Amino acid sequence: MTAMTQVSEQFEDSVIIVGVGLIGGSIAAAIRKRHPGCRVTGVGRSEQRLAAAQEAGLLDDWATAVTADMLQRPSVVVVCLPVNMIAAQVCEVASMATEDVLITDAGSVKTGICDQVTMDQKSARLFVGAHPIAGGETGGFENAEADLFHNRVCVITPPQQPEGDDHRIARIIGFWSGIGCTVAQMTPREHDRILALTSHLPHVMAAVMTSVVGPENLPLTGSGFRDATRIAAGSPTLWKEILAGNREQVIAAVQSAEQTLADFRIALIQRDDSRIEALLSKASACRTSLGS
Amino acid sequence: MTAMTQVSEQFEDSVIIVGVGLIGGSIAAAIRKRHPGCRVTGVGRSEQRLAAAQEAGLLDDWATAVTADMLQRPSVVVVCLPVNMIAAQVCEVASMATEDVLITDAGSVKTGICDQVTMDQKSARLFVGAHPIAGGETGGFENAEADLFHNRVCVITPPQQPEGDDHRIARIIGFWSGIGCTVAQMTPREHDRILALTSHLPHVMAAVMTSVVGPENLPLTGSGFRDATRIAAGSPTLWKEILAGNREQVIAAVQSAEQTLADFRIALIQRDDSRIEALLSKASACRTSLGS
Repeated sequence: MTAMTQVSEQFEDSVIIVGVGLIGGSIAAAIRKRHPGCRVTGVGRSEQRLAAAQEAGLLDDWATAVTADMLQRPSVVVVCLPVNMIAAQVCEVASMATEDVLITDAGSVKTGICDQVTMDQKSARLFVGAHPIAGGETGGFENAEADLFHNRVCVITPPQQPEGDDHRIARIIGFWSGIGCTVAQMTPREHDRILALTSHLPHVMAAVMTSVVGPENLPLTGSGFRDATRIAAGSPTLWKEILAGNREQVIAAVQSAEQTLADFRIALIQRDDSRIEALLSKASACRTSLGS
Repeated sequence: MTAMTQVSEQFEDSVIIVGVGLIGGSIAAAIRKRHPGCRVTGVGRSEQRLAAAQEAGLLDDWATAVTADMLQRPSVVVVCLPVNMIAAQVCEVASMATEDVLITDAGSVKTGICDQVTMDQKSARLFVGAHPIAGGETGGFENAEADLFHNRVCVITPPQQPEGDDHRIARIIGFWSGIGCTVAQMTPREHDRILALTSHLPHVMAAVMTSVVGPENLPLTGSGFRDATRIAAGSPTLWKEILAGNREQVIAAVQSAEQTLADFRIALIQRDDSRIEALLSKASACRTSLGS
């Protein structure tokens, strides 16, 4: 992982956001706040929702599909769709775009998307995959926040660079850092391995904790349980796609968790309380270093 | 479980808090705010800490040990010590107390404590076990809050009632509801079975999630991970005692979690994505019903 932050002197003139939900809406809000001169176009399925997002001040303009017309001037297109829909949308945009268009995304799984996009030469040239590590349980542009990305890491996963692609990477770093992110660069596979541990496994663990408690025992939960399981309220449909989209790495992460849970169980059965304390101490030290 | 709330017309005249940390200090703060006429005495190991708690306005008086002298008038004694130290302290207090003294505790495991206390007749008569489901990762009376117990459930676990013990149960309900709790009554074993699921397992799960991520991957964690693992920062020494003090029930809870994790893993391996969505949906519906 290489961390880099670059404050670009000049932001994009035009940004097209495909999928104006929590993430897409927050990107629009961040641009509005930081770069009021940039034209923001929203693309989505529902005319009613898009009109409401424009009414809320997030969009200059909107449409229900990306058109060749939109892609004739230098723009960044950010695809904020569920992970299973990103690659096809990127390729469709690329097929219509001039070479001055840069395409990125906000998908929380990268290998599958980058592999699919790379199969098409023009798409591979115009696309730099990204994942801003920010979000919430509650979707919809109504929950958008201009500062959602402030000081959050955005991982970008450019392909092995052919000559002359440096300027595209610099431009994408300028885009994501321009809305507040600290940009880090790694391979799609490295991203997916780490995010399986830091994001996808916690989602599974929160679901597991909630399920074994069940509705009947909720009255005897405290603030610790609320915090630990908050993410379990997220959309089952979106999260099914994320887990399935990072299948191998999530399986490995779940296996690691099962192994460590078994360590706790065996220490409890063997009455090896110093082992229990050692397991808890390791976690406590690590979590304390992250801050509250 | 029987839920009951009773607002007593008259609170206690005297409360003795053994162990003035986060919980003991918050009980003191709640009494100060709600029942300023009640005399609050703190008992602890460190003269310096007790003097500081008095200085902070939490205590009228303090001592480094409970004495027979303190126990000659009607009082509630609340033992807020680590779970492995509670039973012995209860029995010591009971041995010196008049019949007008009522002893309770705030331990998060109940069967072992209640079993030990019941072995002594006088202790069994004066003691009603309790567990206010409230707390935080950060100990010490400096973090005490007068509203820590507001609308939180306090489980009381009185023994099978001999004749004439109703007034002791009514009095303990008056005490805990008097500092803001909603009181629920159940057996120590039922309490421990449920709390293993709602509190002790989440602590283990948070430690597991933190450990498999490790310090090297913390930069790629987001707010979901922070929430899900916050409790892992708690004291390893205190939590070792809680897990060991509820060994059988925690083992069973960990086994349930391992089983559900295996369900996820197998569904992922078998590419049974509708099963994954079903597992996520069950958890999401349950967690959503709890509110944020």
